Amino acid sequence: MIIDCHGHYTTSPPALNDYRKRQIAALENPALPPLTPDFHITDDEIRESLEKNQLRMQRERGVDLTIFSPMAGAMAHHVGSETTSQHWTRASNDLIHRAVALYPGQLAGVCQLPQSPGVSPANCIAELERCVLELGFVGCNLNPDPSDGYWTDPPLTARHWYPLYEKLVELDVPAMVHVSCSCNPNFHHTGAHYLNGDTTAFMQFLMSDLFKDFPTLRFVIPHGGGAVPYHWGRYRGLAQQLNRPPLEDMMKNVFFDTCVYHRPGIELLLEVVPPDNVLFASEIIGAVKGIDPRTGYHYDDTKRYIDAVDWLDVQRREKLFSGNALRVYPRLAAHMARHASANRSLA
Amino acid sequence: MIIDCHGHYTTSPPALNDYRKRQIAALENPALPPLTPDFHITDDEIRESLEKNQLRMQRERGVDLTIFSPMAGAMAHHVGSETTSQHWTRASNDLIHRAVALYPGQLAGVCQLPQSPGVSPANCIAELERCVLELGFVGCNLNPDPSDGYWTDPPLTARHWYPLYEKLVELDVPAMVHVSCSCNPNFHHTGAHYLNGDTTAFMQFLMSDLFKDFPTLRFVIPHGGGAVPYHWGRYRGLAQQLNRPPLEDMMKNVFFDTCVYHRPGIELLLEVVPPDNVLFASEIIGAVKGIDPRTGYHYDDTKRYIDAVDWLDVQRREKLFSGNALRVYPRLAAHMARHASANRSLA
Repeated sequence: MIIDCHGHYTTSPPALNDYRKRQIAALENPALPPLTPDFHITDDEIRESLEKNQLRMQRERGVDLTIFSPMAGAMAHHVGSETTSQHWTRASNDLIHRAVALYPGQLAGVCQLPQSPGVSPANCIAELERCVLELGFVGCNLNPDPSDGYWTDPPLTARHWYPLYEKLVELDVPAMVHVSCSCNPNFHHTGAHYLNGDTTAFMQFLMSDLFKDFPTLRFVIPHGGGAVPYHWGRYRGLAQQLNRPPLEDMMKNVFFDTCVYHRPGIELLLEVVPPDNVLFASEIIGAVKGIDPRTGYHYDDTKRYIDAVDWLDVQRREKLFSGNALRVYPRLAAHMARHASANRSLA
Repeated sequence: MIIDCHGHYTTSPPALNDYRKRQIAALENPALPPLTPDFHITDDEIRESLEKNQLRMQRERGVDLTIFSPMAGAMAHHVGSETTSQHWTRASNDLIHRAVALYPGQLAGVCQLPQSPGVSPANCIAELERCVLELGFVGCNLNPDPSDGYWTDPPLTARHWYPLYEKLVELDVPAMVHVSCSCNPNFHHTGAHYLNGDTTAFMQFLMSDLFKDFPTLRFVIPHGGGAVPYHWGRYRGLAQQLNRPPLEDMMKNVFFDTCVYHRPGIELLLEVVPPDNVLFASEIIGAVKGIDPRTGYHYDDTKRYIDAVDWLDVQRREKLFSGNALRVYPRLAAHMARHASANRSLA
C-alpha cells in the first residue's frame, strides 16, 4: 500500500478558474454583489482532467492513493474579503469532493480553509466541519501567511489560531502547513515562499508550548520540511540553547513529507528525521514538472529516490509509504473502509 | 592554510552596545540631535574580548584566519533613519578595523553597510569605499531585507541595487547576503529569518539576468545556502521549467559557506554543490553556541564534520579551506601580503 500525502488539483477543468476570474473582476466594481460559485463542470470533465494527469502518473509510479486538496497557489487568501475567500474555498472544496467521489479508491480529500488576513481562524471552523463531517475529508491545509508574502498575521503558535486547533483536535484531523502564492516580489512562490513557510512554521513550533496545550494536534510540514532537515544540527542546537525541549519531543506532533526532488536530499531527510515522522509524497502535478536529463525521470518522482536508498528496512518503508499516513490521518482508514465496503456491495 | 569566511564580532566590548542603546533612546526624543558615536574602547578591551573568545576557538580548531564583520543581528537597519544607520554602521566598522589592526594575521575585515528601508543602496557607496580603500576591508555584508522581517524593499536583482553593485565590481569585493534581526514575530532570527533570507536570495538570482549585467559580481550565501542544497533538484527543475540557464551558469557568481551544523548536512552540501562554490565557515561565536551531547563537540565546529567526510581529495579540501576564499575575496591576498611584509620589517 503506497499513500502519497500531498497532491493538489492543479489540473481542474477551466470553469473553476473562469469563475475565479469573474469573482475577482466583480470585486473591482463595488456596486456588484459578491459572485457566488455559479459554474458547471461535468463528471466527464473531472474524469478527463484526472485520468490524463494525476491518476495516470499515480498508476505509472505505483502509488495507490493520493491525499488530494485544492491547488495551493490558487488559495490566494489575500484576495478580496473573507466572503471572497469563503465562496472560493467552498467552490474549490466541492470540486475536490466530486473528484474523490469519482475515484474514492485513488483519492482522499483534504480541504482548503476560508482564511483571510486579519480574520480569526475561528471563522474557518464551519467549512472544516462541513468538509470533514459531511464530505468525508481527512485533513486540511493551513496557510501560515494569509497575506501571501508579508506575514502580517500572528505566528501559528499564537492564541489567534487556538479555536481552529480545538476543532482539529476534536475532529482528529491534521493540518498541512502550506502557504499559497506570493504577492511579495522578493519571494518566488514555489522557489522561496513555500520553503520559507515550512522553515518558519517549524521554528515557531520549536519556540512554543503549543503542543502542551494541544498534545494530539498534528501538523505535516511539506516540501521535506523546508530547510529544517538540512539544518537539523542547527535546530537541535537552538532548542538546547533556548532551553526548549529536545526536538524529539515535537515529533509527536510534527511530520515532514518527502517532496524533495533529488536523491541526496531524500537520503538526508531519511537519515536525520525519526522514522515515525516522514510521510511519502510527491506533490504531483506541482511545482516541478520536468524530466531530469541526468536521470531520464521526472524530478518529482520521489519514489525512485526512496527506492534507491538501500539501507531502508521493510518496517521503515512500510511506515514511510503508508503506516505514518494512516496514523497522522486517522480518518483515512474509515475512508478506505467505506470505499471497500461500497466495492463489496457492488460485487 | 584554513580561512573561515564568516565570523562576526558578537563579543564586542560593552561600550559599543551601550552607545547603541543611547543612540536609540535619543531617537525617541525628537528634540535631541542624532547621537554620533561617542564611546571609548581601549585596545586591551578589544584584545580581551577576542582572545577569550573567537581567537581562542580559532586556535583550538586550527583555523588560521577569519573574515570578520560586525554582528549581523545587530545591524538592525530598520532602526531610526538613514542617519541612524550611518552612525551605527561607522561605529561598528571602525571597531572591526581596530580588531583587524590588532590581529592582522588572524582577522580580515568585512563591513556592514548603512542601509535603511526604502533608501537607495547608492547611499552605501561612501562607507563601502571608506572601508575597502582606507581600512583595507575585503568585502561587505548586504542585507536583502532592510525592513528586518517585512521584505518591503525590492528584490536583490532590481535596478534599485545596481549603483552599489557597480561599486562592488569596481572595487572587486564580494557581498555576503546576510539578513539582520527580525521584527516580525513570525520569524525567529537565527532559526527562520536567516535561512529564509538565504533561500530567497538564491531564487531571486536564479530568476534574473543580474549576472549578465554584472558578470564579475560575486555573492556568498551563508548558512550553507539556506534550504538550497537540500532542494538542489527542485532548483535544477525550476530553472529548467522557467527557461532559465542551468544552475551551473550562476555558479560563477554565487557561493555558499559551510555553516551547517551536523555531518549529514555538510556532506549533502559537498555532494551537490560544485567544488569551486563552497567556502569553509563556522560563524563563531554565532547562532548556535552549545556543545552537542551526541558528539561532545560544539555544534558549530564545522571543520570536524568536513574532516569526517572521507571522499574529499586534497585538491577539493584546498579549495574549500582557502582556494575558493582567496578567489572570491581577491583583496584577501593583499591583506595577507601586507601583514607578512609588516612582520618581515619587524623581524
